[in-house]
Amino acid sequence: MNGAAAIVGIGATEFSKESGRSELRLAVEATRAALADAGLKPSDVDGLVTFTMDTTAEIALARELGAGELRFFSHIGYGGGAACATVQQAALAVSAGVAEVVVCYRALNERSGHRFGQVSRAAATAPTTAGVDNGWHYPMGLGTPAATVAMVARRYLHAYGGSSEDFGRVAVADRRHAVERAWDLPHPPAVIAAAAQGSAPDQYIMTSYYRDELTGLPEMGVVGRQLWRQAGVRPEDIRAAVLYDHFTPYVLLQLEELGFCARGEARHFIADGGIELDGRLPVNPHGGQLGEAYIHGMNGIAEAVRQIRGTAVNQVAGDGPVLVTAGTGVPTSGLILTT
Amino acid sequence: MNGAAAIVGIGATEFSKESGRSELRLAVEATRAALADAGLKPSDVDGLVTFTMDTTAEIALARELGAGELRFFSHIGYGGGAACATVQQAALAVSAGVAEVVVCYRALNERSGHRFGQVSRAAATAPTTAGVDNGWHYPMGLGTPAATVAMVARRYLHAYGGSSEDFGRVAVADRRHAVERAWDLPHPPAVIAAAAQGSAPDQYIMTSYYRDELTGLPEMGVVGRQLWRQAGVRPEDIRAAVLYDHFTPYVLLQLEELGFCARGEARHFIADGGIELDGRLPVNPHGGQLGEAYIHGMNGIAEAVRQIRGTAVNQVAGDGPVLVTAGTGVPTSGLILTT
Repeated sequence: MNGAAAIVGIGATEFSKESGRSELRLAVEATRAALADAGLKPSDVDGLVTFTMDTTAEIALARELGAGELRFFSHIGYGGGAACATVQQAALAVSAGVAEVVVCYRALNERSGHRFGQVSRAAATAPTTAGVDNGWHYPMGLGTPAATVAMVARRYLHAYGGSSEDFGRVAVADRRHAVERAWDLPHPPAVIAAAAQGSAPDQYIMTSYYRDELTGLPEMGVVGRQLWRQAGVRPEDIRAAVLYDHFTPYVLLQLEELGFCARGEARHFIADGGIELDGRLPVNPHGGQLGEAYIHGMNGIAEAVRQIRGTAVNQVAGDGPVLVTAGTGVPTSGLILTT
Repeated sequence: MNGAAAIVGIGATEFSKESGRSELRLAVEATRAALADAGLKPSDVDGLVTFTMDTTAEIALARELGAGELRFFSHIGYGGGAACATVQQAALAVSAGVAEVVVCYRALNERSGHRFGQVSRAAATAPTTAGVDNGWHYPMGLGTPAATVAMVARRYLHAYGGSSEDFGRVAVADRRHAVERAWDLPHPPAVIAAAAQGSAPDQYIMTSYYRDELTGLPEMGVVGRQLWRQAGVRPEDIRAAVLYDHFTPYVLLQLEELGFCARGEARHFIADGGIELDGRLPVNPHGGQLGEAYIHGMNGIAEAVRQIRGTAVNQVAGDGPVLVTAGTGVPTSGLILTT
C-alpha cells in the first residue's frame, strides 16, 4: 500500500448553510474543481467512490461530468467512518491497475437540506440490521448521535477525571484554526503512505455499549495499528493530524487510541496546548469539521493534502507525514499522507 | 490482479420461497457454510463485502459470526451488477495485504420476503439521483425491471430478427441444467484470473435508453475487454460460462458483448445448441438464476468455483477457465476463474 498511489487533486464547493442547489450539482462542481486542481479532464476519470449514504450514484455523476467508461466504483458504509476508506479504495484500484484516475466524492446539503443528527423513527423501524440495532436504544431516548456519544463521554470522565471543559478545548482550538481558505493550482502529489479501515469486536454504530470498556474507540485502534505498520512511522513522527471532530470527546479518545498519549492523558495533552498550531501535535489546522464544515470528513483529507503540498492557510512547518482519521464511534478508517 | 487471490470456500443456505428466518440469519448460515467449506474459523475473517442493497451490515454479520477485528469492508451498488465486484473487492484487499480472509455475502428473502421487480412509488420519489432517474420513466409505465428490459429486447429483435422463442431457449436450457446440488468439503482454490467492473457512457439503471444504439450492453463490453486482458485468454478458451440471467434477452446480448459470437448472431448460436452442456459454450450448468435461485448472481459464482474444483453436478469436462458475469442493464462486473 505504502506509496502505491497518490492524491493529485482536491476540490470542494463553498461550504454554506444554504447551497441553493442539488447534491448532484454540488458533487459535479466539487469533482470538476478537483480535476482542474489536478490538471485532468472528466474523460480521464475511470473510477468513482463514495459513501453508501451519498444520494448521488456514480453513474449520475459520470453522466453529468461527461466521463466515459468506468472501471471501478464502490461505496463505504457507516457515515463519516467512510471518509478515508474511499481513498483506500482508490489506492487499491490504482495500485492493482484496475483504474487510473479515481475520484472520491461526498456531496451533502446538510444544514441546507436534510439535517443530520435528529431523531428519526424510520431509523429504528427499518427492516435492516441497522434498524434492529437502533431498536435497542431508541426507546431508551438514545435517538441521536449526540446522545450516544454522551454515554461514552460521561464514562470517560468517570474513569479518568476531568470535565466537559476538557472536551470544549477541542472546539476552541478548531474554531481558532478556522480561517478563509486559499485556493491554488497544480501541485506535487500527496503520496498515500498508509490507508486502513477498522471495526472491532461488538461493533455497533455509535452505540458499542456492550463492550467491557466504554472509554475507548477500539475500532480506531485497529486503524491506527495498521497505519503505523503500513507507513513505517510512529506517532512522534506525525507533523499534523486531522482528527474527526463531530463530537469533541472523541478527539480525546482518538489521541489515546492512536498512541499520541497514554490512556486517560488526552485532557492533559490538550490542556498543555498539545493540539495547538505550535503544539506537539497540531490538530485540525483548517478548523476541523467544527470550524470549517461538516462534510463527513472529506474536507479533512483535502486539508491533509494541502499540508503535504505546503499550501495550507495554517501551514504546519516541517516535512513529516500527516495523519487523517474518519468518523468515530462507527467502523472507521484512516490515512497517512507523505510528500 | 491475475492470480493474486483465490476463492477457497463457498456456502449457501437452501434456496426456498419461504425461508422462515431473517436475512441476517441467512447471511450467518451461508457464511458459516463457506467457512466450513474452506476449513476456516469465524475468527479468521478480517474482511466483509456485500451489496449496497443488502440489509445485513458488515458489523452485524461480524457480531453474529463471532468474528474479531475487521480491516476491510465495502459495498457495491446496482443490485445484481455487484456480484462479481464483491469478489474483485476481496481480491484487491487480499493482494494488497489489507486483509487475509474476506467473505463476500448477499442474503435476501426475495420470494419469502420483499418481492423484487414490483412497481414502487418510493423508487421514483426518493431524493436521490436514482429517484430522479426513475422519475423520467416511471410515469411512462416503465416501472419494473421486466418492462425496462422489454424495451431493449424489442429493439434487438427489430435490429437482428428472431422472436421471443430465441429468448425462451435460454430459460429452457437453464431449467434443463437445474438439478439437485451436491455438497462437498475442502477443495483446491479457484484462482481469480480476472475481476472487472464496467459502466459505459450514458449509463442508467436498466434504462440506458439515450444511447445511440439499444441493442447492446456496452457496460458488459467494458467488463469483457478487461477480463480478456487481465486473464490473457480469449472467448474460445472459456470452458463454461455463468451468465446473469434475470431476463433471457440479456443472455443473448452478453454472448455478443463478450465476443462469444458476432452482433446479432446470438440467437443462431443458441438455436444451434451452443449454450447446452455439450455445446460450444456450456452456459449456466447449475440452472442459472432461472433454474436454481435468484440470489443476485452470487450462486453463479459458487457454481463457477464448483466447475473449477471439478465437483459440479453438471460438470463440464476440461480444465479451461470459467467466466462469470453479474447483473445486466446496470453497472456490472465479471470474473474469470482458473485452477
